[in-house]
Amino acid sequence: MATSSIKRDSANLEAWQQICRAEPVLKDIRNAIDVLPGMTPDLILTSGPPMKWEDYAGGQREAIIGGAQFEGLAQNRETAIAGLDAGDIRIDGCHDHGCVGSLAGIYTASMPVLLIENETAGNLGFCNMYEGTNPRRLNYGVYDQGVHDRLTYVNTRVSPVIAEAVRLSGGIPLKPIIRRALHMGDELHSRSTAAALIFTRELFPYLIEIAEKDKQAVHEAVTALTEDHYFFLRLSMAAAKATADAAHHVEGSSMVTAMAFNCRGFAIRVSGLGDQWFTGPHATVEAQLFDGHTQEEITWMGGESTITETIGLGGFAQAAAFPLQRYQGGSAQAMIDRNMELYNITLGENPDYQIPALDYRGSPTGIDIFKVIDTKVLPAMDIGIPGRDGGQIGAGIVRAPMECFTKAREAYIQRYGAF
Amino acid sequence: MATSSIKRDSANLEAWQQICRAEPVLKDIRNAIDVLPGMTPDLILTSGPPMKWEDYAGGQREAIIGGAQFEGLAQNRETAIAGLDAGDIRIDGCHDHGCVGSLAGIYTASMPVLLIENETAGNLGFCNMYEGTNPRRLNYGVYDQGVHDRLTYVNTRVSPVIAEAVRLSGGIPLKPIIRRALHMGDELHSRSTAAALIFTRELFPYLIEIAEKDKQAVHEAVTALTEDHYFFLRLSMAAAKATADAAHHVEGSSMVTAMAFNCRGFAIRVSGLGDQWFTGPHATVEAQLFDGHTQEEITWMGGESTITETIGLGGFAQAAAFPLQRYQGGSAQAMIDRNMELYNITLGENPDYQIPALDYRGSPTGIDIFKVIDTKVLPAMDIGIPGRDGGQIGAGIVRAPMECFTKAREAYIQRYGAF
Repeated sequence: MATSSIKRDSANLEAWQQICRAEPVLKDIRNAIDVLPGMTPDLILTSGPPMKWEDYAGGQREAIIGGAQFEGLAQNRETAIAGLDAGDIRIDGCHDHGCVGSLAGIYTASMPVLLIENETAGNLGFCNMYEGTNPRRLNYGVYDQGVHDRLTYVNTRVSPVIAEAVRLSGGIPLKPIIRRALHMGDELHSRSTAAALIFTRELFPYLIEIAEKDKQAVHEAVTALTEDHYFFLRLSMAAAKATADAAHHVEGSSMVTAMAFNCRGFAIRVSGLGDQWFTGPHATVEAQLFDGHTQEEITWMGGESTITETIGLGGFAQAAAFPLQRYQGGSAQAMIDRNMELYNITLGENPDYQIPALDYRGSPTGIDIFKVIDTKVLPAMDIGIPGRDGGQIGAGIVRAPMECFTKAREAYIQRYGAF
Repeated sequence: MATSSIKRDSANLEAWQQICRAEPVLKDIRNAIDVLPGMTPDLILTSGPPMKWEDYAGGQREAIIGGAQFEGLAQNRETAIAGLDAGDIRIDGCHDHGCVGSLAGIYTASMPVLLIENETAGNLGFCNMYEGTNPRRLNYGVYDQGVHDRLTYVNTRVSPVIAEAVRLSGGIPLKPIIRRALHMGDELHSRSTAAALIFTRELFPYLIEIAEKDKQAVHEAVTALTEDHYFFLRLSMAAAKATADAAHHVEGSSMVTAMAFNCRGFAIRVSGLGDQWFTGPHATVEAQLFDGHTQEEITWMGGESTITETIGLGGFAQAAAFPLQRYQGGSAQAMIDRNMELYNITLGENPDYQIPALDYRGSPTGIDIFKVIDTKVLPAMDIGIPGRDGGQIGAGIVRAPMECFTKAREAYIQRYGAF
């Protein structure tokens, strides 16, 4: 089957509109086993294109081993490795189960996940909960008693309060929160400070109800919601997954619907090219590291929070978040220049997600693989940086590798013909 | 007595440091009669240099008449005018009673006021409460049953809840809130959206306590706090008053410590020149009006919220608040240019109040009358615009008139000698 440029444009318009029209609404927080498609008790989900167990290395491998222990699938590190070696503990990629992983992105059956419905298309997207401010986290490749305790705390103490508030509310629409947060210094990937405050304010009437039963738990939940810049990221990730998935599988579209990486490299999915991942080497990074850390420590252990960039947030809205200079380096002008450049590789401007510093221009939305190849402008993403010994050691900006796009172009031409 | 340029520089450094070192803390909300210096039951405070009753005109006159009725000093408009004519109802300027007025700035004895202590210098600053989202407000020269009811609602329903929460807290430091809000799209004059959310979050633990007694009142208070962009302005005004007053009366200083206007014109006070107001004509304005209103309707009825600009906020931090383009006109670049220009007339950069879009440069702080005269750059201020029939009809940017500064220079030279 051969397709014309006109047919591709029309398919891309359809895919782009699915992104722009999405109405993600937080409906519930449920355990992964109860809501993630295909989730089973023996399954651990991790970021990026799924690989065989023996191909996972470094922090991502450690995170999988930690996840098995956390879930009680193994009593210790050794039995976890044995279970993974034997295939008694299975591994799969988050994206194929409706969710997205932050860094290593470990999901196990009992973990609570945010359930977002895209009310326009009717599909669901999921993300698990932020582990808290300590840089040593399971999703950064660390597992010890402290990580276990903090995860347990979030899952058993924080999540139930927020879950109950969300249920009492009947659902919290996320698009209005994201839209406002873009006017308040957030880009919804490496900074979601305002979004968390607005979200907390939306929950307030229901939190007061819950406080009648357990005031202390409500205090703790509000602290978890607002103590740093990352809690709401999980909501913007799940919203972005529910948004991008609605634009996936549009026949003939060359628009990117997912960007993700594992410990081996970067990868993209394309709307009209099914569930195949087009892989390439690791992204290049401009990092700013926390005091006491060096460039040599930077490692890769996976990441799918780049789903936010896929729908026009994060690096694609970085001129909305100048405070990130302090966190991930650069200057306001560099952020503007980088943001402006991304209009060259996108299909349109998001009508809802607007950037005040760019005179309210809509964020560049919907990456076209052909535009990336033609312009040589690579998607820019804001990410947290893990260290080889585990934990977060900084933040920075990465660029997707060209190889993913050239491979996707080949597959596109193979499937749809040259034009 | 003659002073050298070195002595003036040293005095200005002292005054500027008082601004930068101030630590405004919200300690309480009390009735004006109980806390405002020199407040009496028959007194109405209004914005700008105080005048004889017969000199007040238009909306400011209407606001004074409305204030007399609201306070019960008169049963109706006619008896209020008679009382004012006879001097039974007295008028004075807000600034001389420790407070600052928003627009017409009406204070009467029973009104609750925010009590801010500058913990560095130990002085107090006050401001009364935001009347709510309806553009018809007493401070915009309107008084009718609706205005009366909304004022009564704020005073008897909203203020007591916030007052109790503040007392339970032991005091809410405002500088950290203002500092964070500048990274979240606020300039703390025409936009205080993030500040209100952060403030609400700070009050949250105490609001939950109060909700045990009266949940509905807490819901209403939180709505008042967060429903638009103006609630926190009264806190930033009071904080700015407590800040600027600490820098007032520094012998030899040519730094502006207040900018204010009444219905007749604009005026400034200067640190080393006592309580004299140096007056000029009305400020010039670039306004953006709400739908259905025209430039011909623009009128002046006083205003002292320009105290925020006096300490380096508002128009002096406008590049922190690009969303204001939508509200008061202009472009992001115009806001940057205007903000940058103001560094030419200020004594230094505020170490705490930083502007992310200017690569975290501190806001231009401490206006020097000599720099204004030398550079011909006039202070720029973000203000709400009243209409001649009362009510808010838009927002915009005003420039102080040069005449205030030339008069102040004359007085300075007369007092301290030429150099």
